[in-house]
Amino acid sequence: MKILAGSVTCPQGFLAQGVYAGIKKDDKNDLAIIYSEYPCHAAGVFTTNVVRAACVDFDCRQLQDGKARAIVVNSGNANACTGEQGWEDAMTMAALTAECLGLQPQDVLVASTGVIGVNMPMDKVQSGIIAAANTLSEAGDANAALAIMTTDLINKEIAVEIEIGGQAVRIGAMAKGSGMIHPNMATMLGFITTDAAISSKCLQIMLNAAVNKSFNMISVDGDTSTNDMVLILANGRAGNHIIDDPDSKDALAFYQALENIAVGLAKMIARDGEGANHLIEVQVNNAADEKTARMIARSITSSSLTKAAVFGLDANWGRILAAAGYSGASFDPGRVDIYLGAEMVARDGMGLVFDEEQARRELEKETVVITVDLKAGEYSATAWGCDLSYEYVRINAAYRS
Amino acid sequence: MKILAGSVTCPQGFLAQGVYAGIKKDDKNDLAIIYSEYPCHAAGVFTTNVVRAACVDFDCRQLQDGKARAIVVNSGNANACTGEQGWEDAMTMAALTAECLGLQPQDVLVASTGVIGVNMPMDKVQSGIIAAANTLSEAGDANAALAIMTTDLINKEIAVEIEIGGQAVRIGAMAKGSGMIHPNMATMLGFITTDAAISSKCLQIMLNAAVNKSFNMISVDGDTSTNDMVLILANGRAGNHIIDDPDSKDALAFYQALENIAVGLAKMIARDGEGANHLIEVQVNNAADEKTARMIARSITSSSLTKAAVFGLDANWGRILAAAGYSGASFDPGRVDIYLGAEMVARDGMGLVFDEEQARRELEKETVVITVDLKAGEYSATAWGCDLSYEYVRINAAYRS
Repeated sequence: MKILAGSVTCPQGFLAQGVYAGIKKDDKNDLAIIYSEYPCHAAGVFTTNVVRAACVDFDCRQLQDGKARAIVVNSGNANACTGEQGWEDAMTMAALTAECLGLQPQDVLVASTGVIGVNMPMDKVQSGIIAAANTLSEAGDANAALAIMTTDLINKEIAVEIEIGGQAVRIGAMAKGSGMIHPNMATMLGFITTDAAISSKCLQIMLNAAVNKSFNMISVDGDTSTNDMVLILANGRAGNHIIDDPDSKDALAFYQALENIAVGLAKMIARDGEGANHLIEVQVNNAADEKTARMIARSITSSSLTKAAVFGLDANWGRILAAAGYSGASFDPGRVDIYLGAEMVARDGMGLVFDEEQARRELEKETVVITVDLKAGEYSATAWGCDLSYEYVRINAAYRS
Repeated sequence: MKILAGSVTCPQGFLAQGVYAGIKKDDKNDLAIIYSEYPCHAAGVFTTNVVRAACVDFDCRQLQDGKARAIVVNSGNANACTGEQGWEDAMTMAALTAECLGLQPQDVLVASTGVIGVNMPMDKVQSGIIAAANTLSEAGDANAALAIMTTDLINKEIAVEIEIGGQAVRIGAMAKGSGMIHPNMATMLGFITTDAAISSKCLQIMLNAAVNKSFNMISVDGDTSTNDMVLILANGRAGNHIIDDPDSKDALAFYQALENIAVGLAKMIARDGEGANHLIEVQVNNAADEKTARMIARSITSSSLTKAAVFGLDANWGRILAAAGYSGASFDPGRVDIYLGAEMVARDGMGLVFDEEQARRELEKETVVITVDLKAGEYSATAWGCDLSYEYVRINAAYRS
């Protein structure tokens, strides 16, 4: 697998652009379009929150035919809790984008992120759509990646190339997310493009699986948003024999690249958790089943006490074990070993005399690796999170204002 | 119902004392004994964490006969994740206390709170038990309430008197808890005494119900501890006809007082959340069933984003609705009304033009009341939490050190 620079315009036949439409109060990019020059198979995964933004419902309907060619996305306003007007605004965004690009409205997917409960400033959105559509280019992906950010500190872009049946196939992606990230994808948007030829049914199966291993395994603060979605467009320009059997060798090769892309973005999001200083990677090994491993890994990355302890460089393994304990999974705490990096800090559920200096050095690392060995089976899972800092509170105390 | 000063020694026949045994690093009280001069019926409710401190397992065994006469409790060390040694230390604490008080070891319940994974300093514990047992008194309750505190800023004591069958019956209680408080009682200890005559079966039923309405409805940060418990001792000295039927009029009168005690303590704990400036009371009304009301109320009090918004005096009702949405309960977001105090801020799931100044004044109050009206049925629930501040992070970044 070759890592490439760039993101959604790396695969053949994709263009993008991001502009400042005036939806955000500051003068940062806030509207983007991702466009395929050719028809695409498409799939999406959406928030599990009962409260769903208009664009979420809209896209679910749009994807019923498994096809799409463009994505219009804005930051600064979530178009959530906006009732009938919100639904109309989402439809208008799709219609305007289609008109500018010479597409049918049913070819356009819509995404929004930002403040909840405020109607979209549609005049600004309209100008933004026109400006972005008129300047689409292969080099526009960087502007687009900036336009989907809210409290993100860094733009999140990734692309890879693999070979499928002798053809070079590319997958590119961008994402936003830094607060409210939780198992089950909270306030995160992910847009993936590929020039692979793949059926929409196969695409949906693989996107579900990849999201499960990546975006659903990150946590910043336990809040799940109204707007989360991951969308994928596949335009088939790579010329590989179409992937239609999810169990085929080609499908596996594609899936591995897709999971890689998704995990890469998920880690960027977790690391960029509001106010975070560390990426926390929790590896749960030797569980009796996969569900147990996942529940425990996610519970530890979600524990405010564990996150605050990492912020404070405090090797407080008791909080790690306690978070495993209330995960809802059943396991024998008397068999659990815990490691901070390479340093074993608990054995069989009890404390060890360990090297405090070494443990502190592990906690000082950019990526803090916590390993929990359940010694009960052969399943494992990995989850990612970040530490909890003063800065998180500051950012979230006055977001709306 | 008459509110009395004092706590666990208000009911007839109870003595208490708290001392400094040297378990904590500072010189604050860290060991307490609560003692009844007469045999008691007893009941307990314990943590749901899979990882359970030695004292939790120990007390469950002790309570199998529904009887106890004394509680020994220490702060500064949780005696959790301490394996076989932890179990022996809990047994030794009970045996030492029994010896000092002329009781049998099976009459003594043990509770601990503090750091996880460190063996108990049993020499200090022993001296503390002797010192406390030798100075038990009716006036010792205040010292005892101080001895169970960890990061608590204030001691939590409460007592009431009611009349049952013409007899004055008293219930007194103390609690600790300020961090890790979550639905299902995290790092909280509650000790309740009463001179009511009541069977242990009835006592257990009523304690379960009262805990469900109180301690299980508070949340500080979503972490559930290894050591939580609420214990109740009833010595029958009030002379009322013994309460044995949980559906009787006497039982109802007793239950109402008990719930009042439990809710009072729960609110004190939520208000004393680490670093908190506000008590947040979330009232969910007109739900289709009680479970829905409870899930939504607890989800909102647990939302980091809602908590940070209250800290920042930001009337961000979208976060409240989003937290309801990911609670796991099913409801129609398009029917939800939200109030901050008396100010309606959302109607039918959408924002209103509301008085921002008035909303801010509601958020400045010591107790911030959030009301969510689901307009779907006739069930309601109340949960309590606190805001999330810089101070929470500071306290938890370096607790162990």
